[in-house]
Amino acid sequence: MDAHVYGVGTSHFGRQPGVAGPMLAQQAIIEALGDAEVDSIDAVFAGTVFGAPGTAQRALQTLGITGVPILTFENACATSSTALHEARHAVMSGRYERVLCLGIETMTAHFAGPITPEVTDAEGRAGLALPGVYAMVASRYEHLHGLDRQALAAVAVKNRAHGALNPRAQHGSEVTVEEVLASRMVADPLTLMQCCDISDAATAAVIGVPRGNPRDVRIAASALRSGELWDHRSTQPWGYDLMASVASDAYEEAGIGAQEIDLFEVHDAFTIGEITATEALGLTEPGGGGELVLSGHTTLGGRQPVNPSGGLLSRGHPLGATGLAQIAEGVWQLRGEAGARQVEGARVAAVETMGGGTAGIDGNGCVVVILGG
Amino acid sequence: MDAHVYGVGTSHFGRQPGVAGPMLAQQAIIEALGDAEVDSIDAVFAGTVFGAPGTAQRALQTLGITGVPILTFENACATSSTALHEARHAVMSGRYERVLCLGIETMTAHFAGPITPEVTDAEGRAGLALPGVYAMVASRYEHLHGLDRQALAAVAVKNRAHGALNPRAQHGSEVTVEEVLASRMVADPLTLMQCCDISDAATAAVIGVPRGNPRDVRIAASALRSGELWDHRSTQPWGYDLMASVASDAYEEAGIGAQEIDLFEVHDAFTIGEITATEALGLTEPGGGGELVLSGHTTLGGRQPVNPSGGLLSRGHPLGATGLAQIAEGVWQLRGEAGARQVEGARVAAVETMGGGTAGIDGNGCVVVILGG
Repeated sequence: MDAHVYGVGTSHFGRQPGVAGPMLAQQAIIEALGDAEVDSIDAVFAGTVFGAPGTAQRALQTLGITGVPILTFENACATSSTALHEARHAVMSGRYERVLCLGIETMTAHFAGPITPEVTDAEGRAGLALPGVYAMVASRYEHLHGLDRQALAAVAVKNRAHGALNPRAQHGSEVTVEEVLASRMVADPLTLMQCCDISDAATAAVIGVPRGNPRDVRIAASALRSGELWDHRSTQPWGYDLMASVASDAYEEAGIGAQEIDLFEVHDAFTIGEITATEALGLTEPGGGGELVLSGHTTLGGRQPVNPSGGLLSRGHPLGATGLAQIAEGVWQLRGEAGARQVEGARVAAVETMGGGTAGIDGNGCVVVILGG
Repeated sequence: MDAHVYGVGTSHFGRQPGVAGPMLAQQAIIEALGDAEVDSIDAVFAGTVFGAPGTAQRALQTLGITGVPILTFENACATSSTALHEARHAVMSGRYERVLCLGIETMTAHFAGPITPEVTDAEGRAGLALPGVYAMVASRYEHLHGLDRQALAAVAVKNRAHGALNPRAQHGSEVTVEEVLASRMVADPLTLMQCCDISDAATAAVIGVPRGNPRDVRIAASALRSGELWDHRSTQPWGYDLMASVASDAYEEAGIGAQEIDLFEVHDAFTIGEITATEALGLTEPGGGGELVLSGHTTLGGRQPVNPSGGLLSRGHPLGATGLAQIAEGVWQLRGEAGARQVEGARVAAVETMGGGTAGIDGNGCVVVILGG
């Protein structure tokens, strides 16, 4: 049996260190249940990376949602995408008719700067916080294909321009290539405006069996794999092989190819991440990602907009909440509810979330979901 | 399709603060894969409560287990029982043929004493760490039924006597009723020897489709529900209603009743927990749990041994690892591999894990699994 997305919701995205995770979760849940037009659910599949044990239960109890199974997942940045993937299978197998998916993360009260590596990690001790990991992705990419720093900056410029059209974005202003390149160097070649911001937010979606409601969005496919923490033996940039294999699984299940997809939400935690994602997802060949963004192909109004929401670079990246935020954008786009950032005639959307890697978040997992079709 | 347990394994249980979680996990995984006689798996369903993000991936990568989906669950004390429950459904629905389940917890490096409540919890600020929660269970029980402190102590005496026969137990020595009652008062009426110890350990199980191997143990049923953090409106002791409803679900699925079960592993985090569990699981009526233990009914050699492993009171309670430790005991018992603590002729075993409650572990979830039959 198919599974459909009935409704989605999010809290405010931003630095809100005084607001507890359960409070954020309640904002997202209330919006999602209202959007889905349901008043009861059979199970909750929640996710958080750094949240205290039972964060989801605390939010749910206050809303009177108790007595049903409540599961909490952790899968690094792919945490709530993983919850959605599992919820979809629970619906498809007939276990549940309606599952509430939930992502919750409060980061600004915990992290002053980038996520801190665990001291037991060899990579962590070597200083490989996530900006460093992605800087090495860029270095590897440069070695393989050459790397135009203008193209890297163009990803940030594009996504911030999209985000300026998204009232939910944490950073809602446009930036120029010059501003991006002149912003503080974080990990060469990634400047500050090429790095997503930490955030506090929660996200929710209601998944269920087909019910004949035209606002519901079909989940045509979802795929999940975990990979090497650190792809020592790959010739590709970190994450490429994993993203490509998961995308291949998802395309096979959906019976479509990259060229048939109208818009993408991908994991642009850092600008280079979007470039490798567009290649791994098959929008272009390896090495073609820079030209792809410079050509306008992936800009709103182009043939295949990537991150019409503004992506993580605009929205902010509350780890466990990000996946369902991407799903929410896909749903709004396919319903035609995306307002000023609407992709005209959108029928199929792909969402890619890349989790972890090394140094503080040891997991490495990727989820690709195809919506619509 | 049914799901069977192919094999189980555990690390050493004990206070081993210098040993990282992934190292413990590897001990458990290697034993479980060998016991299962498999050399590949389709997915990993792991669990930890306080472990760093990606703890499971780090353990698995070092063993060369990559490329498959790796999920990590958190459900308080019921964490690895939840992983098993979900893995069973993934096998039953045909998604995977073989799933490795994993529970990992390192506590002694993090907690000097009892688990510390979150400062945002109303209950936490009121001092309701878990010993306090269970002390209030005992107080409520006393109000409802009267409470014989000798019976409470008898639970510890019985389980420590069982644990003395279990080479994997963290506390492998017998104790007397007098010693139990004379040990330091932790939260009236619960003395130190009535409280499980924190621990560092990992546990594993391989679950798969039926393959005709007589050593494999069928999972006849599994049930999971989450409840109120704190059962303000119940007239019963905390947790009773939830345990009873989950047990009812499991018995219904298995098509059997409590009297047909040969042995039980239940969540004796505190002595009163075993008394309420035996009542909720239907071994006796509410109020009968004290007499049940005093009569020898639940002692090895009695009609329905409870916690032949020694339970959490002997084994120690590494939160996320406990559920699969209970499952492992059930498997060993049903195979006739339990050595000096073997329940003769055991054919059906029930495992109950009660998670969380309040104050630092906000979740409240219960899992009941029926093995064999």
